[in-house]
Amino acid sequence: MSRPVCAIVGAGEGLGRSLAAKFASQGFDIALISRSEASCVAAIEAVKTANNTVEVRFYSADATNPETLESALSDAARELGEIDALIYNVRKYFTACAPLDMSYAELEDTYRVEVVGAFAAAKSVLPSMINRSRGSLFFSSATAALRGSGTYPLYSIGKFGLRALSQSLTRAYAKDGVHIVHFRLDCDLDVPIMRDLYGDRYDPEKLARPDDVAETYWLTYLQPAGAWSNEVEIRPSIEVWTC
Amino acid sequence: MSRPVCAIVGAGEGLGRSLAAKFASQGFDIALISRSEASCVAAIEAVKTANNTVEVRFYSADATNPETLESALSDAARELGEIDALIYNVRKYFTACAPLDMSYAELEDTYRVEVVGAFAAAKSVLPSMINRSRGSLFFSSATAALRGSGTYPLYSIGKFGLRALSQSLTRAYAKDGVHIVHFRLDCDLDVPIMRDLYGDRYDPEKLARPDDVAETYWLTYLQPAGAWSNEVEIRPSIEVWTC
Amino acid sequence: MSRPVCAIVGAGEGLGRSLAAKFASQGFDIALISRSEASCVAAIEAVKTANNTVEVRFYSADATNPETLESALSDAARELGEIDALIYNVRKYFTACAPLDMSYAELEDTYRVEVVGAFAAAKSVLPSMINRSRGSLFFSSATAALRGSGTYPLYSIGKFGLRALSQSLTRAYAKDGVHIVHFRLDCDLDVPIMRDLYGDRYDPEKLARPDDVAETYWLTYLQPAGAWSNEVEIRPSIEVWTC
Amino acid sequence: MSRPVCAIVGAGEGLGRSLAAKFASQGFDIALISRSEASCVAAIEAVKTANNTVEVRFYSADATNPETLESALSDAARELGEIDALIYNVRKYFTACAPLDMSYAELEDTYRVEVVGAFAAAKSVLPSMINRSRGSLFFSSATAALRGSGTYPLYSIGKFGLRALSQSLTRAYAKDGVHIVHFRLDCDLDVPIMRDLYGDRYDPEKLARPDDVAETYWLTYLQPAGAWSNEVEIRPSIEVWTC
Repeated sequence: MSRPVCAIVGAGEGLGRSLAAKFASQGFDIALISRSEASCVAAIEAVKTANNTVEVRFYSADATNPETLESALSDAARELGEIDALIYNVRKYFTACAPLDMSYAELEDTYRVEVVGAFAAAKSVLPSMINRSRGSLFFSSATAALRGSGTYPLYSIGKFGLRALSQSLTRAYAKDGVHIVHFRLDCDLDVPIMRDLYGDRYDPEKLARPDDVAETYWLTYLQPAGAWSNEVEIRPSIEVWTC
Repeated sequence: MSRPVCAIVGAGEGLGRSLAAKFASQGFDIALISRSEASCVAAIEAVKTANNTVEVRFYSADATNPETLESALSDAARELGEIDALIYNVRKYFTACAPLDMSYAELEDTYRVEVVGAFAAAKSVLPSMINRSRGSLFFSSATAALRGSGTYPLYSIGKFGLRALSQSLTRAYAKDGVHIVHFRLDCDLDVPIMRDLYGDRYDPEKLARPDDVAETYWLTYLQPAGAWSNEVEIRPSIEVWTC
Repeated sequence: MSRPVCAIVGAGEGLGRSLAAKFASQGFDIALISRSEASCVAAIEAVKTANNTVEVRFYSADATNPETLESALSDAARELGEIDALIYNVRKYFTACAPLDMSYAELEDTYRVEVVGAFAAAKSVLPSMINRSRGSLFFSSATAALRGSGTYPLYSIGKFGLRALSQSLTRAYAKDGVHIVHFRLDCDLDVPIMRDLYGDRYDPEKLARPDDVAETYWLTYLQPAGAWSNEVEIRPSIEVWTC
Repeated sequence: MSRPVCAIVGAGEGLGRSLAAKFASQGFDIALISRSEASCVAAIEAVKTANNTVEVRFYSADATNPETLESALSDAARELGEIDALIYNVRKYFTACAPLDMSYAELEDTYRVEVVGAFAAAKSVLPSMINRSRGSLFFSSATAALRGSGTYPLYSIGKFGLRALSQSLTRAYAKDGVHIVHFRLDCDLDVPIMRDLYGDRYDPEKLARPDDVAETYWLTYLQPAGAWSNEVEIRPSIEVWTC
């Protein structure tokens, strides 16, 4: 009997790595989709440590090019088996900018990564999930999806679009047995990128641990079809509320 | 070593019964708080069936009288041990009425049950939970907490207040290690009351099964403190979206 | 031909005074409802200054006692004519407290003022408004109506309830030609109470001017029935956004 | 003394036409920006009828090409004077489709029209508005901006993005004296496109009249800086509430 398959688009050293390890520990084969295998090394290692009886494979794709995502996910399904859980966990590196300083190219780029790429991933797995009346389609997002930002407008505009996509897919395909979830992280993660951004102000006590977040993704995966959440907020107990 | 304790305020034949069975099956002693033991018979039976090695006890209280709730929960803590999970699952039987037909007495009554009673329950367990830096405080609510209703105004007004209470408690006490959650059921439950309300239109396929909902409560209970949800929406895959 | 009538429940030295002056300047007779005439002196003076050709009268009522509101509004309608605009502008003086420090009496009191009183006022004027297919019913509220508060829980719980009431009334009676609006002030007002609360930190540049807010109420009053807002947010241009 | 200037991007036979007539009637010169002058004929006529003492000019631009918008608005400002009110009123003709039937090209197109074009328009006028500490930047949007759609996903995804842009601009530039508003129409408009879509089910009583909507835009324009709304919902009194 074959193992279930979890595909993760965007599996770097942070949350993607924790998700890969978590699903591997539960007996899933893991497909990691990213631009370069180098960026997935930490995730691959984490999978092997978590469970050396499952398979983990890397597939190359560029989130700004939807056809490459389709092709990577199609390869993964052919080699590992139909995908049971797809986690779209891509995030453009975000830097602060005033809204008037956005360029048209950046505006299009954030959308391509956050929305078009997410749709390409969804399109690659949904028909088969609908067909089998099962499957989970998870999108990693943030509170920025719920309110604009005077300082990180590109990030917010991208995440709003991702949320619209996730809600639209849910309304259309939940009834077909596919669990579609927009995960809204209301916190910064304790991952390498954030350590850099925080610099001297870095304090692990004020950030969310990726392993904890991955655990809550997993618990959401376990929800029965009769009682699903389609938007899941995640916030460490120590988070200072901003809204 | 003692078993953890789960107290459920409002444990009739519907969701309360499923929650009691679920937490019992996970090794919790169960305290059922309700107006009459008769209304808890189904829940008591369900606990015994789920796990006959745990204790289940009934405590009498009237949700419209906060002192009786304090006293019942204090009795439960003394007899069974400190409460780890408190689920406030009370709901005034709701009947449709035009807003102008609400009486002042009904307006006050819905608030007493939904908000004052919920606060009394919270007040009874929070100091000890804060002290131990652990505990879960769950409120059963509904989509009515998010939008007014031209046909069920009393229910909506009560649930808005409950949500405000839940959010206020979370903002104050999450940092002390207490997991406070407002569960928003976006569906009608397949429980005796609903079967009556639906009459000829009753169709179990269109309602949420209480056991599924209890399962999602349980999965929420398992969330690590580093990645909590404080508002959890629950909706069956087959639910037709209204917002 | 008679003048239109505007009734304001809660007309102290702040927003109530500005609203009274604004509607008077537009040719409305003004009914001021408050606990004591002394608290309305500033509003009465402002009306006379704004327009000495209109009438302004005081009616005594206690917002925690719905029957007194009904009776005051009934007196006003009999003496001045049917009420065209009712503004419920009552606010319990709010002081910070931890949620666990709320008393049951305070919890009930905030609800009586914010919700039961607002309903009593609505009940007093709605049947006649529905009958004439015209009228405006305005509720002064705040951002606290949209999110709980770890520091001002009583205020938030009251305003959530008020919002639920306003939405329920709108859904039931907008179609009958009554314009029902929940005004959400996302700012502190430059009124005597706030000057006291701010103390040394008082800075008029960081607060909303009541006359500006009254102007926006008035512009909302002018909206045609074909393009109403039912929730109006109000925020000074200089407001720092919190959500 | 020169007249104030209102520029409208997207001025066909529907809301754009009513907005043009309204602002003209209040003494504004009108710049109409659209792909073809033919599509603006009705709006041009409406301006002349409303007020034949103001100027109305057409400028050609393609909302999917941001540089053409910049150039049209720059021409308008040079010829008519600095723009006081810019209304971005563009909408892709929307047809129903299942989310899985969206093409990548359509996904990018809706974003280009709703978000990139709106940003190009904003970029063209904001620096001058900030400089003068005055100006209004209005975006026509819809309830689709607040929730995904299983049947009109493209429209929803575009409007989510527009709302994110509007909120981001407001948070950054309101303090500089620019009034930025996301108008959320919670109704279908009684415009030619909708008459076609409704076909036999067309009932003018169930749709919003564009003149009423334009009136509410105008009243919003009049709001003092001390009491602005940044998100304005618009709904006819007879609208059946869906959320």
